[in-house]
This record gives sequence, C-alpha cells and structure tokens, in this order.
Amino acid sequence: MLLHLCTWAEVEARLEKSRGIIIPIGSTEQHGPNGLIGTDAICAEVFAKAVGEAADALVAPTIAVGMAQHHLGFSGSMTLRPSTLIAVIRDMVQSLRVHGFERFFFLNGHGGNVATVTAAFSEIYAEASLQPGLPNTPGLRCTLQNWYDAGAARQLSRELYGAQEGSHATPSEVSVTFHAYPEAIKQAVLDPPVAPSGRFTDAADYRRRFPDGRIGSNPGLASAADGKRIMDAVVPELASAYRAFVAAP
Amino acid sequence: MLLHLCTWAEVEARLEKSRGIIIPIGSTEQHGPNGLIGTDAICAEVFAKAVGEAADALVAPTIAVGMAQHHLGFSGSMTLRPSTLIAVIRDMVQSLRVHGFERFFFLNGHGGNVATVTAAFSEIYAEASLQPGLPNTPGLRCTLQNWYDAGAARQLSRELYGAQEGSHATPSEVSVTFHAYPEAIKQAVLDPPVAPSGRFTDAADYRRRFPDGRIGSNPGLASAADGKRIMDAVVPELASAYRAFVAAP
Amino acid sequence: MLLHLCTWAEVEARLEKSRGIIIPIGSTEQHGPNGLIGTDAICAEVFAKAVGEAADALVAPTIAVGMAQHHLGFSGSMTLRPSTLIAVIRDMVQSLRVHGFERFFFLNGHGGNVATVTAAFSEIYAEASLQPGLPNTPGLRCTLQNWYDAGAARQLSRELYGAQEGSHATPSEVSVTFHAYPEAIKQAVLDPPVAPSGRFTDAADYRRRFPDGRIGSNPGLASAADGKRIMDAVVPELASAYRAFVAAP
Amino acid sequence: MLLHLCTWAEVEARLEKSRGIIIPIGSTEQHGPNGLIGTDAICAEVFAKAVGEAADALVAPTIAVGMAQHHLGFSGSMTLRPSTLIAVIRDMVQSLRVHGFERFFFLNGHGGNVATVTAAFSEIYAEASLQPGLPNTPGLRCTLQNWYDAGAARQLSRELYGAQEGSHATPSEVSVTFHAYPEAIKQAVLDPPVAPSGRFTDAADYRRRFPDGRIGSNPGLASAADGKRIMDAVVPELASAYRAFVAAP
Amino acid sequence: MLLHLCTWAEVEARLEKSRGIIIPIGSTEQHGPNGLIGTDAICAEVFAKAVGEAADALVAPTIAVGMAQHHLGFSGSMTLRPSTLIAVIRDMVQSLRVHGFERFFFLNGHGGNVATVTAAFSEIYAEASLQPGLPNTPGLRCTLQNWYDAGAARQLSRELYGAQEGSHATPSEVSVTFHAYPEAIKQAVLDPPVAPSGRFTDAADYRRRFPDGRIGSNPGLASAADGKRIMDAVVPELASAYRAFVAAP
Amino acid sequence: MLLHLCTWAEVEARLEKSRGIIIPIGSTEQHGPNGLIGTDAICAEVFAKAVGEAADALVAPTIAVGMAQHHLGFSGSMTLRPSTLIAVIRDMVQSLRVHGFERFFFLNGHGGNVATVTAAFSEIYAEASLQPGLPNTPGLRCTLQNWYDAGAARQLSRELYGAQEGSHATPSEVSVTFHAYPEAIKQAVLDPPVAPSGRFTDAADYRRRFPDGRIGSNPGLASAADGKRIMDAVVPELASAYRAFVAAP
Repeated sequence: MLLHLCTWAEVEARLEKSRGIIIPIGSTEQHGPNGLIGTDAICAEVFAKAVGEAADALVAPTIAVGMAQHHLGFSGSMTLRPSTLIAVIRDMVQSLRVHGFERFFFLNGHGGNVATVTAAFSEIYAEASLQPGLPNTPGLRCTLQNWYDAGAARQLSRELYGAQEGSHATPSEVSVTFHAYPEAIKQAVLDPPVAPSGRFTDAADYRRRFPDGRIGSNPGLASAADGKRIMDAVVPELASAYRAFVAAP
Repeated sequence: MLLHLCTWAEVEARLEKSRGIIIPIGSTEQHGPNGLIGTDAICAEVFAKAVGEAADALVAPTIAVGMAQHHLGFSGSMTLRPSTLIAVIRDMVQSLRVHGFERFFFLNGHGGNVATVTAAFSEIYAEASLQPGLPNTPGLRCTLQNWYDAGAARQLSRELYGAQEGSHATPSEVSVTFHAYPEAIKQAVLDPPVAPSGRFTDAADYRRRFPDGRIGSNPGLASAADGKRIMDAVVPELASAYRAFVAAP
Repeated sequence: MLLHLCTWAEVEARLEKSRGIIIPIGSTEQHGPNGLIGTDAICAEVFAKAVGEAADALVAPTIAVGMAQHHLGFSGSMTLRPSTLIAVIRDMVQSLRVHGFERFFFLNGHGGNVATVTAAFSEIYAEASLQPGLPNTPGLRCTLQNWYDAGAARQLSRELYGAQEGSHATPSEVSVTFHAYPEAIKQAVLDPPVAPSGRFTDAADYRRRFPDGRIGSNPGLASAADGKRIMDAVVPELASAYRAFVAAP
Repeated sequence: MLLHLCTWAEVEARLEKSRGIIIPIGSTEQHGPNGLIGTDAICAEVFAKAVGEAADALVAPTIAVGMAQHHLGFSGSMTLRPSTLIAVIRDMVQSLRVHGFERFFFLNGHGGNVATVTAAFSEIYAEASLQPGLPNTPGLRCTLQNWYDAGAARQLSRELYGAQEGSHATPSEVSVTFHAYPEAIKQAVLDPPVAPSGRFTDAADYRRRFPDGRIGSNPGLASAADGKRIMDAVVPELASAYRAFVAAP
Repeated sequence: MLLHLCTWAEVEARLEKSRGIIIPIGSTEQHGPNGLIGTDAICAEVFAKAVGEAADALVAPTIAVGMAQHHLGFSGSMTLRPSTLIAVIRDMVQSLRVHGFERFFFLNGHGGNVATVTAAFSEIYAEASLQPGLPNTPGLRCTLQNWYDAGAARQLSRELYGAQEGSHATPSEVSVTFHAYPEAIKQAVLDPPVAPSGRFTDAADYRRRFPDGRIGSNPGLASAADGKRIMDAVVPELASAYRAFVAAP
Repeated sequence: MLLHLCTWAEVEARLEKSRGIIIPIGSTEQHGPNGLIGTDAICAEVFAKAVGEAADALVAPTIAVGMAQHHLGFSGSMTLRPSTLIAVIRDMVQSLRVHGFERFFFLNGHGGNVATVTAAFSEIYAEASLQPGLPNTPGLRCTLQNWYDAGAARQLSRELYGAQEGSHATPSEVSVTFHAYPEAIKQAVLDPPVAPSGRFTDAADYRRRFPDGRIGSNPGLASAADGKRIMDAVVPELASAYRAFVAAP
C-alpha cells in the first residue's frame, strides 16, 4: 500500500498490525545512451510497490535524488551531497518514528547510495548511543536492501546477460524500466557494445573514462520482457526479506 | 517531458533550446479524514506533468517530503527540518546548474513549504552575492509558484466551495487527487462538516486545535470531476507563467 | 522596558506577570541615495521600544543584521546566510525559554527576513514535533509582525505617498528613521524621482536592475514629521497585537 | 561614524580613504544585582562609538548577543552557541569584504566571547588557507580588542577598585553603563559586598557557585562619574590601537 | 616514513618524487575480554608504518577515533558521528592537497568506518563535481584499503582460525596488537569460547546481543607470534597495492 | 595508563575509582627547518603518557591534527577547521560521558588550538545550559592545560634559552621531541639564528612573514638532553594539576 494513497487514519490502523515500512531510494542520473535518467528511482519505486503488495506493506514516497556526484558530467544528472542525504534520511526516519514505525526497509536502486545510507543509519543510531544511560530507541531498526543484490536478480542477470551485465546502466535495470514505462523505450547506438570498466573519482574523471556513461555493460540487450521476468523472479524474494526483517525479534 | 524518462543525450539536446526546468515540490502529511497523505505531492506532480506537456518543459522528480513539522501528530506525516530542505534544494539547483539549467520553476503544492523554499533561494543566491567582485551566476533564477494561488484556482475554488474551501485539506486539492487517483477515493464522516480555523505552532498544538487534521475546510465536497475542472482551468495559466519566467530577460 | 536596561532580578520579577517578549529584527543594507543603511534595524528598534512602553512589554536587543544578500552590491550592506539566521533565532528563543519566556513577538522591519524567520520558527517547533510522544513545548509560540504591514501603516503610507511608497527605501521607513535620528537626515538627488520596480535574484542582478538601490519608491517625500505621524498611528495597533498575542490561550 | 547612519554612497566614499571598520561585540547576560543585562553590549557599543569619533572610523552595528551559556541560570541571559557565533562573524566579515573592507577591529566587551571570536577568525582564514595555490585574501585581517584589557582600563580599575574589581559584573563595566544610561542606575544590596571567585562550567554549575551572578567583584563601588573617567582614559588608547591596526602594512 | 618525524622541507622534497600518502584510520572501541580498546587504531598504525617502510611512502598521523557508535555500551569506547568523521576526512585531504598531495591511501582497521569514509570521499569529490564547467581536481584520488581484506590476511586467518575468526575482536587483529604491544597482552576467560554472531543497531542493542563485546570470534586463539606471521604476510601485499594506486594514470 | 592498551573491563574497573581522563591534543604542522611536523602532537602525547604514569591516570588517544590553518603554506601541515575540531571534541567527550567519565583534562601542545578547544567546551556546556530546568550534566568538567604554560616549563625555557625561546618552533618543544625520538633529530642551517616575530592571519600571510616557519625562536639550541630536563621538571607539576582537577569538588 502506498503511504501517499492512505489517509492518516488508515496508517494509524495499519500501525496496530505492523511497525514496518518500505522506503524506496534511487537516483536521478544518466544511464548511458538508451537508459533513462530516472532508472534507479524507477526501479526502486516499482520494486517497492510490488513488494508492498506482495507483503502487504506500507510504501513511503521514493527518495528520487540520491548520491550521484560522479554522474554530473552528463546532462540531467542530480546529486545530494552525502551530508545532505544523511540529513534527509534522519529526518524521514525520525518523522515516522513519531507515529510508532520501528522497522525501516530501504529498498535501493543505486550502488552510489550504499555508503551514505549506511552512514545515515549510524548517524541515527548514534543519537541514542551517545545518551548517558544507553536509552536505546527500542526496536528502531534500519536496513538497506539493493534489489539487484537479491539472489534471484544476480542469477537471472547472469543467465540473461552474462558478463555484459556490467555495473552501470546494466541491461537488467534498463529492462525493468522498459517494462515499467514501455512508452519510454529508447533506441541508441552503443559503441562499443560493451562499455569499458574501471573505477572513478569525480564527475570529470568519470566522463573521461566512460564517455557514454555506461560501465562494463551492454544495455542494448535490455527488453521490457526481460524486465517483467526480473520483477517476477525478484519480488517474492524481496517480500520474504521484508517480512523476515519486520518479524525479527 | 519528465526528466526521469529522458536519456542524458535528450536532456543535452533540450538544453540547446531551453534553460528552464519545472521542479514539483509537495509534502507527505495528513489531509484530514478523507484526504490522502500524499495530497500535496500528488497535486504538485500532476500539475507539473500537465504543465510540462502544455509548455513543452522538462519536469524534474518531485520533492515528495517537504516542511510539515506541524502535521506530525497524525500518523504517516513526514517532515524535513527547514535546514535539511534548504540543503536539498541547494544541491538540486547546483546539480542542474552544472548542465546549464538557469531557470528553476518550483511548482508547489504545500503552503508550509513557502518560507523554507524562499529561504533556500536566498541561500543559493547568497553564495554568489558574498563573492568579492560580485561574480553573479548569470541567469540563475528561481521562482516558486503555488498551483492553488493561480488566479484560476482561486476563482474556481471560490465558485465551487466558497468559504468551505478552508486552508488545509481543502476540497480543491482533494478533488485534484481524486481525479488523479480515482482508485484511492476515500469516504469518511466529516464532523463537523466544516473544520475549525486558526493558527498553530508545533505538532502537539496542531493536533489539539484541529482534531481530525483539517483547517477550515469541508473536503466532503471534493470530487474527481471537480479535480478535472480545476486542472483544466489552472494548467494553461501555469504554463503561461512558466513560459514567461523562462523567457524573461 | 528594554531587557538591556534591566537586572536579572527585574526580569525574574517580570516573568511572574508575563511570559512575553518583543524581539526587534531589522537589517543592515542600503536604502537608496538618501536612506540610511540601518533603516530596517532602526525602524524595528524604535517601534519595539515604543510598543514596549505602550504595552509594558520587555524588549530584547535588536537583531541588526538580517537576510539581505541581494543588497550586497551596495557598500555597507551586510547579510546573514539564511542558515545562519535560523541558528541565531533558534539560539535566542531557546535561551529565553530557559527562563520561562513563552511568547516571542518578532517585530520586523525588513521584508527580506520574512521567509527565513518563518523557517526558523518551524526549525524550533520541529525539535518538539520530532520527539516521540509529541512532548510539545507548552506555550512556546513565535510570531512575526512586520510594522509596515500594520493596517495603520498601510493606510497612512497610501494617504501620504500613494504609489510612490514603492517597496524598498520607501518614504515611510525613511521618514521613521529621520524622526528617530534627525541628525542623520540626508539630502540626495533622486533620479528618476520614482525608482523602477521589479523582482531580483542575487546582488549583481539587483544592482543591474535598481542602480541606486531603491525599488518603486520616492523617498524624496520622506520627512521627520511624517515619521512621527506614522509612529503615532502604528504603535497603538502593534501594542494591541502584542497584548493579544500574549493573552491568547 | 555609525554605519547605520550612513547612506551606501557615503560608505563607498569612505572606502576610498580607509578599508577599516570597528565591529562592537558584547553579550546579553546577567551582571549581578545592580548590573544591567546589557552591560557588555552597552560597553562595547559606547566605546566603539567614541573610538569611531576619535579615530574617524566607521562603526558597524553591535553584535549584542554573544557566547554566554554559563549565565543562562539567571533570567534574561541569552547565548549563541559557539558554532552559531562563528557563522555570524563569518557572514558579517564576508559581507563587508565584498565592498572592499579589509581590516576588522572587533571591540569586545565580554570575556566569554574571546575564544569563539578567535576561532571564528581562524574559520575565515582557513577558507583561504585551504585553497590550492595559497590564494590569500589580500589584506583581510581581523583583530579582537577587549576594552577592559587596554592599559588605561587596567590601571584605572586597579586605582579605583583594587581587588574589588573582580572578573564579572565589575565596578568598571557597571560604571561605564551608569555613565551611558544614567536613567538605568540600579540600587541593590550586595551581600557579601565582594562576591566569591572561581571557575565554572555550565549554567547550573555557575549559579551554584555564584548565587547572585557576580564573580569576585563589588559593583557597589560603581558610579556614573567613574564611568566617565574610564571612558575618557580608555578611548584615546583604543583609538590609537585602531589607527595602528588599520595602518599596519 | 612518518610524516610526524619529517621536517616540512623533507616533505617538500618527497613531493617532487611522489604525490601519494598513507592515512591510517582505526577506532577506539571495546574488543572483547582480552582485546585492546585501541585494537583497530593500533593495527592500522602498525600496518601503515610497515607499508610506509616497504613502499617508501609517507604516513600521516593515525585517525584514532572512528565511527563506533554501536560499541558505546562498553566502557572506553569512543565514536565520531558520521557527519563529524566526514568533516575530519575532508579537512585532512584538503589540507594535504594544498601541498600537492594527490593520492590518498586510507589504510583502515575498522569495518564500521567503511561506509562513512566512502561517503567522505564522495563529499570531497562532490565539491568539484558541483562546480559549473566540471573543473575537476586533477589527480585527486582517494582509496580505502582494509588490511584484513588483503588476500593474504583472509587466507592466513582462515588457515589459523577457521570459523573462529569471527567478525569483531577477531584472533587476527588481537594477534597483531599482541605482536605490536607484547607488554599489553591480556588474559581473560572467554565464555563461550566462540562468541555469538548477528547484526545490531545502536549501542544498547549491541550490548544485549553480544554481552562481552565479541562477535563470532574466539580471540583466545590470538598470539603475538601469529601477529608477526600476519604482518609478514600482509605487508608486502599492501605495499604493492599502495604502489599500484600511486602509479595508476 | 593508555586507554588504547586497556580492555573495556579494565576501564570499567578504573571508573570505579576515578572519573578522570587525560586527552592529549597537538597539531600536525611545520616546525621550522629542524623541527618535526609532529612536534605538537608528539609533545602532547609524551607528556600525557608520563603524566598518566605519574598520576595513575587513563590517557585517551592523541588528537594529532588540530587547528593550524596558518601553517598550510608549508608542506605537510594539516588543519581541521575550527567548526570540525569543535565537533570532534564534542563527540569524544560525549562518548566518554556515556561510560561515566566526568573530568576531561586536555593536555595541549599547540597554541593555535586554545581558542577552538575552549569554544568546544562552551559548545558542550551549552547543550546542558539551554535545556529548560537547567538540568546540568553533574560533574562534567573540561579543562585545557598547555604543557608549555606550566610554571616549570616557563622557568626552564627562560633559563635555557632566554629570549631565543620564541613562540613557534621553540627550542623547548623541539628538545622534547628530540628526547622522544632521538632517531629523528634533524640538522639544519638556521638563518638568521633567531627568527622574526610578529602576528599573522592566513597561510599566505604567515609564509610571507616567516619564510622558514619559525617565529621568534632559535631551535638550533635544542637538544635531547634538554628535552629530558624539561620533561623531568614539568611532568610532576602537570600530574599535580591533573590530580587537583579530578579531586576538586
């Protein structure tokens, strides 16, 4: 159930039954010649929605702009500084805690968010840990789940794309967005078909190394049909992960 | 055109023609017994999308969580602290400026955002103003447009609801969301039909004064049909406002 | 009564009778060819003093530097960044709250402060609202009153100056400062007599649009005598507003 | 000359002749049974004004609230957190630097400000020092001068009050305020006549150790006549210090 | 070579030859019944020193307090909030960049630092990436190397301790500290010999789950001799990693 | 006793007997032609260690990078911004307070730290002072002791070096480091033998005024033997100061 489509009374009633919530987090950044700028946010959002239905869970609004400083060499990319994103996550969790939410399942679509989101959790916990007398926030627990790290996602991408999956603008994620927004399927020449791999620092460095934005991937292999297969395979696993997280003592 | 559904090359091409962008900003907060928690974000988003089409403008992802500390007494409401929201807006504008965007049209759905967003603009401008030699950021210009302050919106709400429009959880905004999400139309007893009016400070104070969350409104008058009328009346006016903003010297 | 001219024991005694305090806030910024750089702070201060006497209220020291980034193109102008001003207001209110003050009446002389001061109030309230259990700060209430928005001020300026009041370096505010500091009355050629109007962004943009600093005004009409009339007309209204604010349940 | 009583054109003209400015900084805090809450700000302000006249220097508005956390146990006292005060000083100096000011003479009336103001100077310098290529801000120089540390002030207080000068709510500073505001001269029983001495940490600790707010002083010795003597003796020395500071290569 | 034991002229001379530096980062936190509170900082420091010798690299002073909020339930543990640690790393890197250092090799001894240090790198890069015109900081490159993730470290710990290595207060790290500080070898009863495993949130939660502080480990197996073996095996690999990092184009 | 060489259980046992701790704080900055970059940190560390032994006190890890923005013109120097150092000290003190530590004795080796560390103490105290009801942190007390301000240190440096002690890169501090690290004794031509004196602002200004980094000193007089004499003379005095600080009611 999308939080945005509930009334407050409905949320209050839900809280009687469950203290968990899914918070999708993505990014707004270039995804190569045929990938959408919203790829990571779209993936996080559609997976969250589907998992919310599968696990009867509440789904918060998507954090659509994440930590993506390295993509700023490509038009349309946006970033929050890590310190800003930490503040955003802290405020969101603290807001929901007021109502009694205790289990925060961040469903993530962007590798670049992982470090900052993890640091944000520590920033939140530290407020309790630094209080004399160790008054912990009973039950407050955050977790980060990358949809593409689900076992089923890894297995299927290996099966479908092998080494051409790469690590940015992957055929997997592009497929999921094509499935979600068939009206936005793009055609583009990918040259070379498989992009170079490597590491990077800031945006200028990234653009030099990866001239069309992709890293190690061939998103020319993407299709809406694959996107559906991936979702069908991954959603049940994520729903189980969510249920286990909420049920854990 | 939604930024999220573009490739970076498409954005680059658009920048040749126009340096403007629409950034919808809403809130995630209670909207009374039959209003959706996402009301303000949904309104901002659907207006932005429609204005984007009408004015052939690019539309950034919606800032879905705004400044709504006073609503935290009602389940599901979320807030960013003003200092956090200022940082978010600064980072987003600075990101887009890297690519050459110069005109930032914030399309707002929530009165509680106005002060903080305006302060954020000053924070951004101050960076240029505090540089010796007054090196201004040529052309960088931000504006905030509340959809409900459009002349057509004020006139139509007066016509449709008169004094029962109120100021929070209004029949106008609820109508727009019912039009946008007919599957999420809610029924609720509104007692009294028109909510009390007044001012407020923090969340506890707000909840005491406005026990079901509404201020001065009777959203029992809302309907999807009204939502459509409102959108049809307001979108052209907002599109003109956007075009004028972008074209101004 | 000026807080600065009390002993702590006198303040303690006053708190037995009233939990209110007036905090004047102005700005230090150019006010055109014949207006003083201190205009906004002086107006806030002299109104606060007079209201303090009329309403037997305590008056805190004036916040003399406000949010005025757009004026930095003119010598002598100063600004606090919005984030800094928010911290200042938060610290001042929290300090006074320790002693039992609960009603904070910010008497403002500068339009550029409004958004940031309003955001600061939300930052203060948010600390209470984000605490689980909604432990509100009982009675803590902040309000912002622009002296020039008092009904009597608007009426008199219309009567005295009509459309030549303008919006920055207005004859009204200049008159008040000439009344307060007759030794500092300035003569200057105003060319054109009525300044251009419009909007602005950063300091360089402002200077380009408004070459002598004024916006839409003709402060050549200002006089000390008018200043006295304005004060006589406005102070009682502000004193009533203060009393009502403090007495409200 | 008070900056507040100048027009921007007058400031611009002054900058042709001198790049210096005096910034008075005080505090708003208890000063014992017969001392004014504004003592430190008043002293800073009246000394600054007099030095401004003696040295033909521009005087910025007074920073009236300083770092005084330890006084919050006494009604009416206010503090800025050190981090807030650092931001205020940074913004003020950076504002004035835009116009060409280069020498910032902080005239201080409160011992509790010294560390934080000094740290603020380093925060400002650090921005230049951390730029690759060591692009220093040519000529930008800040200094802090406590009026009570002037040789003449130390000598006269020794002569007038000997060991009863103490270190907080001293007869010297109280005398200066009585001279400045004869209408605010207070009578109070001081018991014991000379207050206890010692160190302190936070506000509760301070109040326990110094029950009426004074430290080591007997402000019962204060008089307006002494205040005049002190000012007459100290102003020329401070004016010389200012001139030397501005003239230094 | 330890930076602390150089003169500035020696550093200047070194910079002619190499733009790299090793920055050890550890933590100050409980390490179970027989592990030292300084374990992570000691390991980072001794590895850094040895790698510095092996690779003729400069070694900065150790960041001894890291992100360890979860250990605050055990006496002597210290943490920096993530936001503080990000500022520390930013300031250190920016300082060294002034002199021409370009390659920053953080040699880490504490898993809890990884997310925050990685976020800090992004915070640093983001400053360049958010500048219009993409003026990157040429060559500035940061990397994080956990000594315990070196292939040789993983292999040897598996060989020596198998599953009893665990993940906190491991026999490997305790051995390294016993080798470094034989005078500080501790004896303690470990009950059970192998600690429980699992995840944790804040300090109170951690203490409940891991009553003596260890996670999954049996540091009773630790010995100074093992510590020497580990160092001998790992240092050459880390030295190679450092050399490759500095030499990379 | 070094905190780093204790187990948490040992710290817990110590806390039964004493609530005090020594925190050495130095700097990483140039110390002239023959002084080590680590001079201030080394001095703080070796004095802290010796005082810890003499007074049976616990010694925290050294804060090795302090506030040294003015030294950034010389290779190898590092600084924390004052705002960063304040956050570091706050987090360290708050961490240790969780365990019951109440007396924080900062043993300092660098004059440039004094203002910022003092401001940090006020930032910490302010959190308690700004709480309504004045709930002070009972017993939490911080002090800053510069080793070179000990009476014995001043006397011996006068005796040994007279006016050639100077104020930066002094023969006293260089001697202490030569005693601590005889393997790192440096030879350098000092020209002139006694460096110029004066004040400074940012790093470029400092480098211009003090071309080899020293201020007013002749560290050519330094020797390891002197270092031993200084330590022998000063440690007992510092140990007494520590004991008195911890024992004070």
